[in-house]
Amino acid sequence: MLPADAKPEAPSRNRVISATEELKSALDHKVVTNPTVRAQHANVTTYLPNEPADLVVFAESTQDVQTVVRICARHGVPVIPWGAGTSLEGHVNAPRGGVCVDLSRMNRILAVNTADLDCVIEPGVTRKRLNEDLRDQGLFFPIDPGADASLGGMVSTRASGTNAVRYGTMKDNVLSLKVVTADGEVVTTATRARKSSAGYDLTRLFVGAEGTLGIITEITLKLYGIPEAISAAVCPFPSVEAACDTVIATIQNGIPVARIELLDEVQVKASNAYAKLDLQETPTLFLEFHGTEAGVAEQAERFGALAAEFGGGPAAFARHPEDRSRLWQARHDAYWSVLPLRPGAKAVATDVCVPISRLADCVMETKRDIEDMGLIAPIVGHVGDGNFHTTLMVDVEDPDDLAKAKHYMSRLVERALAMGGTSTGEHGVGQGKMKYMEAEHGAPALAAMAAIKRALDPHNIMNPGKIVVV
Amino acid sequence: MLPADAKPEAPSRNRVISATEELKSALDHKVVTNPTVRAQHANVTTYLPNEPADLVVFAESTQDVQTVVRICARHGVPVIPWGAGTSLEGHVNAPRGGVCVDLSRMNRILAVNTADLDCVIEPGVTRKRLNEDLRDQGLFFPIDPGADASLGGMVSTRASGTNAVRYGTMKDNVLSLKVVTADGEVVTTATRARKSSAGYDLTRLFVGAEGTLGIITEITLKLYGIPEAISAAVCPFPSVEAACDTVIATIQNGIPVARIELLDEVQVKASNAYAKLDLQETPTLFLEFHGTEAGVAEQAERFGALAAEFGGGPAAFARHPEDRSRLWQARHDAYWSVLPLRPGAKAVATDVCVPISRLADCVMETKRDIEDMGLIAPIVGHVGDGNFHTTLMVDVEDPDDLAKAKHYMSRLVERALAMGGTSTGEHGVGQGKMKYMEAEHGAPALAAMAAIKRALDPHNIMNPGKIVVV
Repeated sequence: MLPADAKPEAPSRNRVISATEELKSALDHKVVTNPTVRAQHANVTTYLPNEPADLVVFAESTQDVQTVVRICARHGVPVIPWGAGTSLEGHVNAPRGGVCVDLSRMNRILAVNTADLDCVIEPGVTRKRLNEDLRDQGLFFPIDPGADASLGGMVSTRASGTNAVRYGTMKDNVLSLKVVTADGEVVTTATRARKSSAGYDLTRLFVGAEGTLGIITEITLKLYGIPEAISAAVCPFPSVEAACDTVIATIQNGIPVARIELLDEVQVKASNAYAKLDLQETPTLFLEFHGTEAGVAEQAERFGALAAEFGGGPAAFARHPEDRSRLWQARHDAYWSVLPLRPGAKAVATDVCVPISRLADCVMETKRDIEDMGLIAPIVGHVGDGNFHTTLMVDVEDPDDLAKAKHYMSRLVERALAMGGTSTGEHGVGQGKMKYMEAEHGAPALAAMAAIKRALDPHNIMNPGKIVVV
Repeated sequence: MLPADAKPEAPSRNRVISATEELKSALDHKVVTNPTVRAQHANVTTYLPNEPADLVVFAESTQDVQTVVRICARHGVPVIPWGAGTSLEGHVNAPRGGVCVDLSRMNRILAVNTADLDCVIEPGVTRKRLNEDLRDQGLFFPIDPGADASLGGMVSTRASGTNAVRYGTMKDNVLSLKVVTADGEVVTTATRARKSSAGYDLTRLFVGAEGTLGIITEITLKLYGIPEAISAAVCPFPSVEAACDTVIATIQNGIPVARIELLDEVQVKASNAYAKLDLQETPTLFLEFHGTEAGVAEQAERFGALAAEFGGGPAAFARHPEDRSRLWQARHDAYWSVLPLRPGAKAVATDVCVPISRLADCVMETKRDIEDMGLIAPIVGHVGDGNFHTTLMVDVEDPDDLAKAKHYMSRLVERALAMGGTSTGEHGVGQGKMKYMEAEHGAPALAAMAAIKRALDPHNIMNPGKIVVV
């Protein structure tokens, strides 16, 4: 064991070498040190530099994960979990080196309890795979961050996405977790009961902890029956403000929209070109309604009336599954659609969330900032929750361009915080948002987070250098 | 400050006397040492003995609470928060003496943000008071544990009740908390944004922590628009099993019932007598539907069809507000209605929750146990969540009767745990359920809870002797 006062810095080469030898002897072919594989397992999605681990272990069981954690704990070597590599704030980087635990081979669906509307899965299962598997049973898992992320990663970043306005985020849809903690023990956070008041909410503590408190090796998720009827709609608006006001009215009126997504006129133009759509190039809401046939029709009608009050509409409906799929594919392809806007640049997704009453202000001020700074950054948003992204085109090789991008992102976060919002609605803290944690939470809350981190990971080996400095 | 290795036992008289002097000098008339007041502020609702604090402080502000905590921390004296005294597992007892902080005077509604569907309140606001205040604005707060509990207490026990099947529990409806922690600092757990991925979920950590990690002094709650249409129904069934099977089918079919409550035939009989109803004395579901006029009618029709498949019905509908109120008053008066069943005895409410697929089994086995043991214990349940209570009539002065009651309660919890359920769906751990924590959570999870408790309350002054032993 490391002494309790060990510094949270990179372990010496000797420690890593000793740990690697022990890991190879215990896990053999599951241990990979190839530089290409290591680089693929570090951050590849953003402006943050790629910081690979010293080795990658392809875990196949909870026991494998325990073996890795125990060996790493003995040598004081960091452990960084990896699911599908789709994270957006450098969560999978290894700034202090260490061992990346690839969980993608832990991809079994262990149980689907149809009567209880839940399932038990391993963390490497991706959301598309899960839904393909569930479809025959008339069930689905609604949380949809766009990317085909692993469920372990989605739990760890408290992911949400397009359906959250109706179905909540990962925090609302995880019933229980099995987690390997820093001492190599396995914690089961809850039973399969739908609710419980039996002590501290360990489930919610590990949801969104980004692997800094333990590695998730099993997940029990809530499921839902596939709605009898689904319809989607596209509704144009004269302004972002009109679209936002319609969203507020929709939520206030209790219309249970399943999805309500904003695309600004820049994004609509990009999507038209990329996905060969012919949408009016104006701020637009993409919507989806779930319910009975009559219920869906009623929701659509009520929404249409509200949109008209704010000068929006008419909405165009997509009732056929293939038209709906095309629409949502276009929404999910927002990231790809903007790449041609600045060839050679990287698309960096930002993420803030504000109380919905401030959404229009926040989006409008951000648009002005984009214009004033001469940036290219289309806006998309899960606006029913007050959450929006700008897809900022950055030449990450150009220091001036990168500095400007960082300045823009800081201003965006500061604007959201000043409006009573959060620095990240769904992408997580990782490395990218750590600098805003004190401004957002205040010193006492951040101290409480650090105390929890030290209590559960006293030697700071679990994904160190993310969320909170200890 | 106490040394870090101070024993978690009652502080010496001297410490209490010194703390009392300091408190009187700082808070004057807000400090009360009268024995009657002290007894009223300890457990009065169950078979657990009344264990009063040494004094009661009537806090009027966050600052008052900070003053109490800082003085108590300096002297190593326990601090026990008190809201309305409706808790059911001895949460408000002071087994090690100390200072009870009565928060009932902190009962201001600080803000109602209609556009954001949220409000900011002090912890002493009770749920009825909140809803009376919100009604004019067309809003309501749905969580309804029956008793007119304080919202601070409801947060602290992770309360739920009749509406949870549709609106979730307290964990789903708290956006943010202000909490005075063991060092006297004030932690704000989150912004008013609807969702966030910015670090550990401190909100959910304090929800259900029963005052053992800090004292809540401000609460931001989600609100909902009062539904356009509400209808209630009473539906008789030939058996508990038929009723439970109908509940499962209702949930699986995605009928968004707002309430679906089981009363067994013993409870229906008691309620008929107490509330002057003329219900058929057979297992019965009480239901409520929220939505548009058309939506509510459709839900009721779909429910009726499912009930008929299991031999239940016909449902009788209460569409007038006064009929609905009478029905739910009768449901909420279940506790009072059973008292005449055994004059002189105390009604002790039990609480377990199981996966819904095991609900019928668990209720049936429990009914057999009640019969075999010769007990009086009508059953009521928030069955949409798999949560049910038995209202056990106990002569708490008779050691044999009390022993039998405790044996029955242990068997009930063990049955629920064996079925993959929890020892408490909504009442909390307090003193009464501590003995089941290891069986429910396992040693590693309980060790994690203890580590968190030690990290945030190193001298164990915050409501010690509840949830987890440290």
